[in-house]
Amino acid sequence: VSGDPFPAFAAADWGTTRLRLWLMDSEGRVLAERRSDEGMLVAAAAGFPQILERHLAAIGAAATLPVIICGMAGARQGWIEAPYVFAPASFREILGRSIAVPHEGRTVRIVPGVAQAENDAPDVMRGEETQLAGAISSLQGRTLVCMPGTHSKWVEAEAGEVKRFSTWLTGELFALLASSSILRHAIEADATISPDGAVFRDWLRQALADPGQMTAMLFRIRAAGLLQGLAQADAAAALSGLLIGCEVGSACRRFAAGSENVLLIASGPLGGLYAAALDEAGFDVTHQDAEEAVRTGLFEAGRRNFLNGGKEGPQ
Amino acid sequence: VSGDPFPAFAAADWGTTRLRLWLMDSEGRVLAERRSDEGMLVAAAAGFPQILERHLAAIGAAATLPVIICGMAGARQGWIEAPYVFAPASFREILGRSIAVPHEGRTVRIVPGVAQAENDAPDVMRGEETQLAGAISSLQGRTLVCMPGTHSKWVEAEAGEVKRFSTWLTGELFALLASSSILRHAIEADATISPDGAVFRDWLRQALADPGQMTAMLFRIRAAGLLQGLAQADAAAALSGLLIGCEVGSACRRFAAGSENVLLIASGPLGGLYAAALDEAGFDVTHQDAEEAVRTGLFEAGRRNFLNGGKEGPQ
Repeated sequence: VSGDPFPAFAAADWGTTRLRLWLMDSEGRVLAERRSDEGMLVAAAAGFPQILERHLAAIGAAATLPVIICGMAGARQGWIEAPYVFAPASFREILGRSIAVPHEGRTVRIVPGVAQAENDAPDVMRGEETQLAGAISSLQGRTLVCMPGTHSKWVEAEAGEVKRFSTWLTGELFALLASSSILRHAIEADATISPDGAVFRDWLRQALADPGQMTAMLFRIRAAGLLQGLAQADAAAALSGLLIGCEVGSACRRFAAGSENVLLIASGPLGGLYAAALDEAGFDVTHQDAEEAVRTGLFEAGRRNFLNGGKEGPQ
Repeated sequence: VSGDPFPAFAAADWGTTRLRLWLMDSEGRVLAERRSDEGMLVAAAAGFPQILERHLAAIGAAATLPVIICGMAGARQGWIEAPYVFAPASFREILGRSIAVPHEGRTVRIVPGVAQAENDAPDVMRGEETQLAGAISSLQGRTLVCMPGTHSKWVEAEAGEVKRFSTWLTGELFALLASSSILRHAIEADATISPDGAVFRDWLRQALADPGQMTAMLFRIRAAGLLQGLAQADAAAALSGLLIGCEVGSACRRFAAGSENVLLIASGPLGGLYAAALDEAGFDVTHQDAEEAVRTGLFEAGRRNFLNGGKEGPQ
């Protein structure tokens, strides 16, 4: 099959607000790509099958080409619920437990999310499990992973398994506070934030040193605008440093005993900000692109589900 | 003057979202009252003088009766800016530095807010200084005060002075998270929360023990709804316990060295929730009604500004 230039399947990362779709050959090479804002929220109203077929047609996918999907399309409020696999769970098990979507004419499957049923720390992920499967080899030992975003995930993986994980609302808190709280008067919500900026670093360090003071420090951003002339772009950097520092500081206390390495799976500017925060917290950072990771994970899921080779793989 | 049944002045607590107005005699007795949702946000558009005169007319205030105001009406985006007095500042100084509002026909004065210019902990208050002046006698020694609300304040007062203070966005965070974040799917935002409820107490204790884990615990409310069937009203109690516990735990670390008493200035159900949190944190609590406190403070401000007796007072 090696070198086959023909599409083997399509793969979609279908999140809350975005859809990304790739046509892949049997080696995982990307033959075509579509990006859209028709995430779960839009698709729940407009119809998942219609949106999927329109994008597949646009990239010339054959009518019978199978499709593998990960992300919020598999949530209760998505296309069809793909029941959670419970941690600890191997990537092999997670990717193998995709469920079939009733869809006329073509095979469509959705990768399940992962749930953590611990009484004291219930948690869920959808989409990140596929990124993780693409980023971590089953041969690796214990790996601590940081996946920043609207809902940041920290994951402890070992020998091809998701062991335990936690979610921080960091990205969502930033958006809410910068746009809808009293802080909006002080903050330029879409300011470009540099990981090397003095204000970002200063608030980051304070939050890392004492994450418990975060809620006490939020209002200081407003007060610093009123009393000290803190510029609105700097106020955005302060809020970002504060929230990221609080996340990393609290994750350290929860996960980092003995860890000196963190695998940072991120795309875009957020990667730089988190790399700075992890460095400041004393971690060695390995950086992997989030989109590349999810594509690799989706290929692995498609291979296991649709290609003969998948059934015989070593994992 | 004792026993005079005639109005001596009107007093208004004019906050961001509410206006409360009282007609007072020279002994501080309330002769009439008005309550309205025409707070600063409404008044900035509709006109402060028009709203004030309409309510004064409705309670039969004479055309020349003076008016004393505290709260956000004195903010930059309010009626006229009443420049901050900087902490440490005595209540005498604060109430004495009210500024005159240009207003035809009657004397109207606004009590200034208090600012804290500390480099590392800039902060501001408007309205709370008047509550404090009404609740604390100048004869008291060091008093630690907790004033819960949209923007909770903790204040260290001593011998009639505001020494230092901090603001927590607790109430605003609750409203934003319960109504506009991913948690809204899990939470009944306007559920009645009991200070004795097991869920409230459980999350409160966890947050008090480790306020730094707050942002890591937020998403658990959503996950507990998905995985453990946490009811939406209980989820509201969990978020309330978490945010109040985080505030009290972080305030303890900041203010409580050597303090075993807290003066809690609060009205309504919030008073009960904070009393439970303060008790759980090991404080002895003295509870004072917030509205009574602001009325007493406004009377003191009016007396100092409008009545002869004020000039000769002992403070």
